[in-house]
Amino acid sequence: MNTTFERPVRIRFSHCDPAGIVFFPQYLVMTNALVEDWFNEGMRIDYAQMIAQRRVGLPIVKLDCEFSRPSQMGETITLALSVVAIGRRSISIDILGYCGNETRFRAKQVLVTTSLESGTSIDIPADIASALAAFAPQPESTEANRS
Amino acid sequence: MNTTFERPVRIRFSHCDPAGIVFFPQYLVMTNALVEDWFNEGMRIDYAQMIAQRRVGLPIVKLDCEFSRPSQMGETITLALSVVAIGRRSISIDILGYCGNETRFRAKQVLVTTSLESGTSIDIPADIASALAAFAPQPESTEANRS
Amino acid sequence: MNTTFERPVRIRFSHCDPAGIVFFPQYLVMTNALVEDWFNEGMRIDYAQMIAQRRVGLPIVKLDCEFSRPSQMGETITLALSVVAIGRRSISIDILGYCGNETRFRAKQVLVTTSLESGTSIDIPADIASALAAFAPQPESTEANRS
Amino acid sequence: MNTTFERPVRIRFSHCDPAGIVFFPQYLVMTNALVEDWFNEGMRIDYAQMIAQRRVGLPIVKLDCEFSRPSQMGETITLALSVVAIGRRSISIDILGYCGNETRFRAKQVLVTTSLESGTSIDIPADIASALAAFAPQPESTEANRS
Repeated sequence: MNTTFERPVRIRFSHCDPAGIVFFPQYLVMTNALVEDWFNEGMRIDYAQMIAQRRVGLPIVKLDCEFSRPSQMGETITLALSVVAIGRRSISIDILGYCGNETRFRAKQVLVTTSLESGTSIDIPADIASALAAFAPQPESTEANRS
Repeated sequence: MNTTFERPVRIRFSHCDPAGIVFFPQYLVMTNALVEDWFNEGMRIDYAQMIAQRRVGLPIVKLDCEFSRPSQMGETITLALSVVAIGRRSISIDILGYCGNETRFRAKQVLVTTSLESGTSIDIPADIASALAAFAPQPESTEANRS
Repeated sequence: MNTTFERPVRIRFSHCDPAGIVFFPQYLVMTNALVEDWFNEGMRIDYAQMIAQRRVGLPIVKLDCEFSRPSQMGETITLALSVVAIGRRSISIDILGYCGNETRFRAKQVLVTTSLESGTSIDIPADIASALAAFAPQPESTEANRS
Repeated sequence: MNTTFERPVRIRFSHCDPAGIVFFPQYLVMTNALVEDWFNEGMRIDYAQMIAQRRVGLPIVKLDCEFSRPSQMGETITLALSVVAIGRRSISIDILGYCGNETRFRAKQVLVTTSLESGTSIDIPADIASALAAFAPQPESTEANRS
């Protein structure tokens, strides 16, 4: 099985809309923060330094989401990130948001390593590629995720 | 061909990230505003009243995006919405964000008409169904969009 | 001296603007979350229940901020809340954001207990008034804060 | 009397909180957009170019707000900006948000012209100073605004 990186997120007043549930773009702000935490804490790659000093960005090129059940203010949900595929210049991740046994949403994202100077894609830097290895999908799980 | 609903959006400082380009969840805040404008101005359905008085919501259940090219602060992009399919309780839309000849992103969204009292899906109310007809996909375009 | 309620906040990519520093309205989203945490964890008043079930809101009527130094992505700042005054229908708080010895911003806020049904101010509910007592300003600190 | 710069703002779903009214930090996102429009359209200074190419920023150092009445989703409010004082390195503005005869909020802001390279304040560039003159407070109005 895949190694996943998980973090809890408290659903806050500021995440919620007039219907009292999470406004969906806020889920994507949360997944962006999860990727940050994954870099900083899961892979020990300093995310802020990567952006600001190394000038390597991670823009998203593809996003597929399913929103199954709404999340309410005051709940704490868990976000679980797993790596689906690692390319030469891209990382495909799958983020599951759940609360107890209930799936709230699922987001598949393809991120591309990019030079913030030139705006063009670059090979995944060696230290990041090496840190990613610990999260690399196992042959069987890759297949399962492809289904 | 489909009837589309278009609106320009100025890319603002508050939309942009430390890389100086639109932070992708902001695109989804923009598409949410576009759906509001489409209801209010394209279909003459009062969106705020629909939510606050009629207690009919339009949560998103499926979202598929491709981000082709970044948008920079100061640019004005156009968002163009077209209807891909109309179900009994759902509306499938396709939103294209472009600037000149360049596609910036594309978002396919499935919205479900929902009672904000019970939280469950409901049939598309008659007045909305009727207004939607003007944007209904033509047979041939439906096929194209299904591909 | 006053009892303060403190929480760390990691400055994230999503908080920052094209200048790479916190976009100031994001500080106010942070202080809103701090007030939530203070209710939930500092005073043991369930904030989400207060809003959603009890229909008691805490709109802000007055806000005075000073922004001394910018905060950068990747930093962890501390937000420290202290109570300046407790009225019959209002709570005046002072929130300091700092990093090490450096003040980043200071926000004075007046919040008014309000019925979300009628939209009018109401007396601070008894359980909240009682919980607030632990954070009540001491005579001398009140004076200092009044200066 | 002062020359003011006004723009309408539609209150959107994404601006509103679980109480169905504008979440106050969103007002400050709106005032930031107003300042952008004022530069671009009122003073004919390209705001995006000022930030991205000239690397001149306008961080806020002081903010004083009063929130008088809530704004509801679907309303269109007007934001009116007037200049209170022009310093060598700072611009003091007053922004009024109103709907019909009703004041919704008022925000006084002090913005400082800053080099985004060094992070330190700089004299207001000559072209901006010159464009600001059209909005300079008249002697009597300055006094009134000082009260």
